[in-house]
Amino acid sequence: MRGKEALEMEHPDRTDPANPAAGAAADACARVVVREGVLEIPGQVALYHGGALPAASIAWRIEGAEGAPLIAALGGISAHRRVYGEHGWWNGVVGPGRTLDAGQWRVLSFDYLGGSGESSGPRPGEAFPRISTYDQADALLRLLNHLGITAVHGIVGASYGGMVALAFAERYPERVGRLVVISAADRAHPMATAWRSVQRRVLRFAARCGEAGEGVEIARALAMATYRSPEEFAARFSGAPRTDTASAVFPVEEYLFARGAEYAARHSPESFLCLSESIDLHRVDAGRIFVPTTVVAVREDQLVPVSDMRRLAARLEHSRLHEISSVYGHDAFLKEAALLRPAFADLTGSPA
Amino acid sequence: MRGKEALEMEHPDRTDPANPAAGAAADACARVVVREGVLEIPGQVALYHGGALPAASIAWRIEGAEGAPLIAALGGISAHRRVYGEHGWWNGVVGPGRTLDAGQWRVLSFDYLGGSGESSGPRPGEAFPRISTYDQADALLRLLNHLGITAVHGIVGASYGGMVALAFAERYPERVGRLVVISAADRAHPMATAWRSVQRRVLRFAARCGEAGEGVEIARALAMATYRSPEEFAARFSGAPRTDTASAVFPVEEYLFARGAEYAARHSPESFLCLSESIDLHRVDAGRIFVPTTVVAVREDQLVPVSDMRRLAARLEHSRLHEISSVYGHDAFLKEAALLRPAFADLTGSPA
Repeated sequence: MRGKEALEMEHPDRTDPANPAAGAAADACARVVVREGVLEIPGQVALYHGGALPAASIAWRIEGAEGAPLIAALGGISAHRRVYGEHGWWNGVVGPGRTLDAGQWRVLSFDYLGGSGESSGPRPGEAFPRISTYDQADALLRLLNHLGITAVHGIVGASYGGMVALAFAERYPERVGRLVVISAADRAHPMATAWRSVQRRVLRFAARCGEAGEGVEIARALAMATYRSPEEFAARFSGAPRTDTASAVFPVEEYLFARGAEYAARHSPESFLCLSESIDLHRVDAGRIFVPTTVVAVREDQLVPVSDMRRLAARLEHSRLHEISSVYGHDAFLKEAALLRPAFADLTGSPA
Repeated sequence: MRGKEALEMEHPDRTDPANPAAGAAADACARVVVREGVLEIPGQVALYHGGALPAASIAWRIEGAEGAPLIAALGGISAHRRVYGEHGWWNGVVGPGRTLDAGQWRVLSFDYLGGSGESSGPRPGEAFPRISTYDQADALLRLLNHLGITAVHGIVGASYGGMVALAFAERYPERVGRLVVISAADRAHPMATAWRSVQRRVLRFAARCGEAGEGVEIARALAMATYRSPEEFAARFSGAPRTDTASAVFPVEEYLFARGAEYAARHSPESFLCLSESIDLHRVDAGRIFVPTTVVAVREDQLVPVSDMRRLAARLEHSRLHEISSVYGHDAFLKEAALLRPAFADLTGSPA
């Protein structure tokens, strides 16, 4: 196992345009340093569901206060190694002065295996072996070994990332101090599997028709509908449809398909298929997870019902359950920085 | 306006194989008579959303106790004129001795305009004009005129049929005594519109690829997921997936796509598009509906949230709200005969 030279960057004057005071405050405390690299694993990498990768790359990134303790932050299947800053997927929550304060912590993440980032993933038109959340957990373990990190202070995982966090804690409890698991359970709910099965069927059908990109647009549009709550859609999309077209076009439809088209420009159908199936194949044994875990359940989450999160919290040996309400449903982890504060405080010890 | 000779059939020994005693009891009370026919409207039929049909056929059926008062029963977009008996869509609820007792009542229904039945609908590969629930209400009015019926005792409408019932009551209050509206509001919820928009997009995409039938399968599979509740799917489909195939196949996926394939064999993509859009274009003014209305809300209905049904009941001048709980969600009207008894009693006066 060898690693490409890690690129180190300093951001001595890094400020958050949305929150310049906080950025300045963070800079006053600690120098923000970025390290990133690609861990190359030359030998065969065996996979949980059978099969193997002939070799593997894992693209990683660490950003935050120099010398500060490390927290791994893992997001949904569209997330990647850039947690905050430019192109960051979690800017609302993580950064200097934010709920997870990058002035106090260093944040590690990586591009998922099987995804559309710079880690190993499917080539256009080719299937990829079945990827388990245990395989993603193994990727994180390899990264820690490579970076010489005995243990991370904690893992904060939301959606797919929460599943990976649970898988990691079950396998490698000595390498992590605490979990914060948001909107992710020990297994997928069959109704969520139903919606994702339809998405995958659309993707495969479209690929067979030579229109894989349109498949991604439709599948992502459907996924978007499951990420939010009926309450949010009622508030935003109650306007009249356009009827000057052959088919009526409803406000919610315009929104969903605009998001679908944006997504299709950046994500391959093969990685969508791979990671979508990985979610539905996820099963961990909550009774074998002994790492202290903060469970965050969103009452309006259609994909991960609050009942599944309560059951997870009840099965875990050491758990604390936070229930929040948000019209953003499954997407609450991206939007509700203030509501997440008490849960993050379990991990960081900062006042909520 | 002229009508084809109505076919009259007698069922002196009609019994319900599932409930022979009830059938016999009903037979003891009244002779069950079936009348059916097709009303042909030779002139142009103007439509609510603009456009017109050059002529129209409305296939109808009346079945029940000879001489008994008439109740119209209207179901979802897949329903048709055969309410009970062979190929009936509402056998669990309507029939001799059932919640709506065909030994005490006559039941009228018709094939929806724009559907896959014997009323006017799209030809293969051709679009059909936009159809409103007001157009279906007009079709019912024409039927009453044709049959010489001054007024029906009531209309029981569920899902799309409930929307048609509301449209009829707003327009023709003197022609109906009471409504029972199940899982249908004054307008579609934007989240439900989101799911149906995706279904229509799949249908149009598949048609463009020359695979319209597969489009119907996928669209119907998605629709099925929205008709039931997460609780029901959790109870039925928590088993392990098949993984000996290129893509994993989950139990819920097998179920949804089996139902989708069955549906595609009997329904055209054009009628699916037409009636699906008709649901989303539905808007009635509840403040202008003065017919006494029993509103039945299902708390687990994902398509028609209980909050929308409460708002409908509050806006109606004369309403009574029944809230029921059912794991069948939007499909509760097909399944929960016992829970529907009190609501039907509002209409029939029978003890609940």
